[in-house]
Amino acid sequence: MLGTMMDQPLSTQMIFARGERLFPRSCVSHFDGDTLTACSYAEIAARARRLAAALAALGLNHGDRVGTFCWNTTEHLEAYLAVPAMGYVLHTLNVRLAAEQLVYIIGHGGDRALFVDADLLPLLTPILPQLAGIEHLIVYGPPAGPIPGFSGQIHAYEALLDGHEPLAQWPQVAETDAAAMCYTSGTTGAPKGVVYTHRSIFLHSMASMMADAFAISERDCILMVPAMFHANAWGMPFSGWLAGSDMILPGRYLQPDRLTKAIALGRPTLTAAVPTILNDLLQAHARTPLDLSCFRAIIVGGSAVAPALIERVKAAWGVDVIQGWGMTETSPLCVLSIPPRDAQGAEVVRWRAKSGRPVAGMEVRIVDDTGQRLPEDGAAVGHLQLRGPWVAGGYYRERPEDSPLTADGWLQTGDVGSIDERGYVQITDRTKDLIKSGGEWISSVDLENALIRAPGIVEVAVVAVPDPRWEERPLAVLALAEGHTADLPALRSQLLRDFARFMIPEFWACVPTLPKTSVGKIDKKAIRELVGQGHLPFVVETGFRTGDQD
Amino acid sequence: MLGTMMDQPLSTQMIFARGERLFPRSCVSHFDGDTLTACSYAEIAARARRLAAALAALGLNHGDRVGTFCWNTTEHLEAYLAVPAMGYVLHTLNVRLAAEQLVYIIGHGGDRALFVDADLLPLLTPILPQLAGIEHLIVYGPPAGPIPGFSGQIHAYEALLDGHEPLAQWPQVAETDAAAMCYTSGTTGAPKGVVYTHRSIFLHSMASMMADAFAISERDCILMVPAMFHANAWGMPFSGWLAGSDMILPGRYLQPDRLTKAIALGRPTLTAAVPTILNDLLQAHARTPLDLSCFRAIIVGGSAVAPALIERVKAAWGVDVIQGWGMTETSPLCVLSIPPRDAQGAEVVRWRAKSGRPVAGMEVRIVDDTGQRLPEDGAAVGHLQLRGPWVAGGYYRERPEDSPLTADGWLQTGDVGSIDERGYVQITDRTKDLIKSGGEWISSVDLENALIRAPGIVEVAVVAVPDPRWEERPLAVLALAEGHTADLPALRSQLLRDFARFMIPEFWACVPTLPKTSVGKIDKKAIRELVGQGHLPFVVETGFRTGDQD
Repeated sequence: MLGTMMDQPLSTQMIFARGERLFPRSCVSHFDGDTLTACSYAEIAARARRLAAALAALGLNHGDRVGTFCWNTTEHLEAYLAVPAMGYVLHTLNVRLAAEQLVYIIGHGGDRALFVDADLLPLLTPILPQLAGIEHLIVYGPPAGPIPGFSGQIHAYEALLDGHEPLAQWPQVAETDAAAMCYTSGTTGAPKGVVYTHRSIFLHSMASMMADAFAISERDCILMVPAMFHANAWGMPFSGWLAGSDMILPGRYLQPDRLTKAIALGRPTLTAAVPTILNDLLQAHARTPLDLSCFRAIIVGGSAVAPALIERVKAAWGVDVIQGWGMTETSPLCVLSIPPRDAQGAEVVRWRAKSGRPVAGMEVRIVDDTGQRLPEDGAAVGHLQLRGPWVAGGYYRERPEDSPLTADGWLQTGDVGSIDERGYVQITDRTKDLIKSGGEWISSVDLENALIRAPGIVEVAVVAVPDPRWEERPLAVLALAEGHTADLPALRSQLLRDFARFMIPEFWACVPTLPKTSVGKIDKKAIRELVGQGHLPFVVETGFRTGDQD
Repeated sequence: MLGTMMDQPLSTQMIFARGERLFPRSCVSHFDGDTLTACSYAEIAARARRLAAALAALGLNHGDRVGTFCWNTTEHLEAYLAVPAMGYVLHTLNVRLAAEQLVYIIGHGGDRALFVDADLLPLLTPILPQLAGIEHLIVYGPPAGPIPGFSGQIHAYEALLDGHEPLAQWPQVAETDAAAMCYTSGTTGAPKGVVYTHRSIFLHSMASMMADAFAISERDCILMVPAMFHANAWGMPFSGWLAGSDMILPGRYLQPDRLTKAIALGRPTLTAAVPTILNDLLQAHARTPLDLSCFRAIIVGGSAVAPALIERVKAAWGVDVIQGWGMTETSPLCVLSIPPRDAQGAEVVRWRAKSGRPVAGMEVRIVDDTGQRLPEDGAAVGHLQLRGPWVAGGYYRERPEDSPLTADGWLQTGDVGSIDERGYVQITDRTKDLIKSGGEWISSVDLENALIRAPGIVEVAVVAVPDPRWEERPLAVLALAEGHTADLPALRSQLLRDFARFMIPEFWACVPTLPKTSVGKIDKKAIRELVGQGHLPFVVETGFRTGDQD
């Protein structure tokens, strides 16, 4: 309609164009475990344009899916830039998935081409014969010979680029076109494909640049620790490029001693990590002091962050931890634990330890089992639901009845939590991980947080086991440090200080180590399966249960 | 389509909701010239909901235009919040316009209701009989009696609010629905209506919050100096509310001594102003030192900013000036003079004195008279064109052939300038203000900048006069300080140091003061009209022109 605003589509092409035009001197540094090798935005943009021309020459069409099976590398970034801008769909694949999951996801996604790091090729080789849809395998690194049973073409990446001039003009895309795709890690059920649009990626990038979000700017150097195969690495390849930030891509070198080296060499200002990695760095610091004062902030997400971790990072390096909570379905930025401006002193850590408040553009609510909104008073706990312009409205090739949305259009996160008066969310559990005992909810996370403080306990998971009287009861699974045994009466006494009697587990098991998911989280689904199959013997702490749930 | 992102409309309702929910304690302070009176976001949100209910009860419908003829006040902010969120269109009216322009704009906009400050009512009263479309006049302040010749209803604002409960649920809006409207100040031709959509306002607000733009955050206190009746006051009522910033609304009290008082009382962190106001503050500071160190930045726009002004502000208070260039048509944020990160020392001022580089989401280019793109080398000067999702695609109720867009969809700004290698724009002139002499362009702005440095010259404007041989030649119009006369040979010698001979004016006029537009800019259209009508006598400096344009 003439008379209002331009119909200018939001797209990853705008992201590409701004980084290329305004920040040709910004640098992306590849880390090989020992040294950094810098490549300018100008060089990367030119290579991405060559890649775009090459992919078009391979016969890809608008909307085709292009898989990546790669670490965090400059080449992977080139795919991030070229694939969506060409109107194709960047389908990032988790390199830690089991073979059968990969076969399922690549087949379900319908990928026609696949990028792979040469050192990851051995993981793919056995399943390539099952990937009939893959017409082109493009290898980063030394050219691969023929692969038995694979009928597609194999290309060496650099030769492919050398064979094409940089693309001059991007094709048209609509803002609601698919731009990228990532399957959820599947802690429950089959993996599901989340499809990001050009619009959602652009909006998420703008949101990441906001002062009260990640505040990503030209002055940043981003250490890309989160995997680029998982929820677009917090979207930072896109937001960083749009802002013109320097980036350090550490490949597979995420071990504390390697990361420390990359930090010393590149002096990054911002990173994002799971708590485990931050813990690793703190432990390394305890042995030999590290200088991480270059960071203006460290974003931590993926699991709940203990206040003690936040305090130790601040004490060690003067660095603020920003806790972020999100999902593959939320691009992933959703809520961030930026403290309110009036928070002072010790209170600051309390706010930083919350899951966070919604960034501009996102809305959250909690509802009860019947879908009624619950009070946002910091006490009521309910199902967390959210909505926003970078939230999934469904899964790729799923039936409408499998939509994760409520009838009124909110995403059901599968998490439960509270929202306080100031709008800060506190996630207390995955819905699947709650124990429903006698009509009441028992939080597995709260029990775990209490038990992990007991001496000798290294890891803990609390899961539900079926119970004829109470429906479900908690089972605590412990991994103990060497030379320790579990003193169940003592643990019970400890828990009784903070928990109602009915919440305290009477089922206990000890294991050498807990099973983990492909992204390093404790895998409760696997634990529940072990229990169900009788493979996890547990004891009952007798003399404990009363007749009533009190 | 199931399988991609939610279809969540970007809207001002999201802006309203975030400020109301997350920042109930943030404050908007009204300044009456002497004291600040704070009102919480919670109170303002409740009042905006009452206002929404009241407007609906008056019979307004989706898409109806609601005018405001007001200073920067809390009540005006309530209209900003309630009117678009109800699906109506907030039509801000410039209180400095002449009566006939107001009649035209209000009639062309088709306003059904009109808010007015009681102290501005006398300006409206004479024209109200001509505003047949206005059914409801809502007065902020003491209730007005009947107005002769006005047939609509007159409402006292507070009584209207008192008569309604807060609206519980906003109606649905689409993101491309009109939300606000502002007529260009019309330095050329009739005023034209720019219509902002819900989408453009939301995107502009996000852009304003980005770290490398205004970085508006919960930690800010915004002194709202730019008029809320002009291009939404740099969009800050919306972006500030979305971010949860405190705001100070200074009403009509923009005189240096009043602003100084508001600053001392409220300690704002951010403001935006035209260079004149900043100059006023510096002059006041020279007389009696002022403490403006509370500002983290001062945004300056509306006219080109001299490097000296930027340096003096930094020297006086340690405050950075961010120059911004935009138009009513660009919401207005378009380019900002944030220096590149590698700028150091004296170089920083050079970057800050540029018009700026495009914020994320905006694209700029320069073209020659035939529409061919020009090199972006800092030297080539051409017509500036731009595009982005918060740029006007046309004017309200204008014919398609009057569209300001090029055939390929870029907005023709009417400005000329250069773009350098780093993507920074330097506006050199309005296209209309360029002097086309013998096929070459002469920049009126460059001549003015040189002449204003000569002793005794208070104001200067250079405009084109028709010339039989060269098509156009420059006329310099000077306003001199008392007791000064113009030494034309000396001025000519001075200009010859920096300008080619053909660029130097041979036509000169002296006036007591130069005409100004309603927003305080020197009004070249009025000067050209005076010249055309023979009302501005000028002299020809003889013995100067050579036979050739060399």
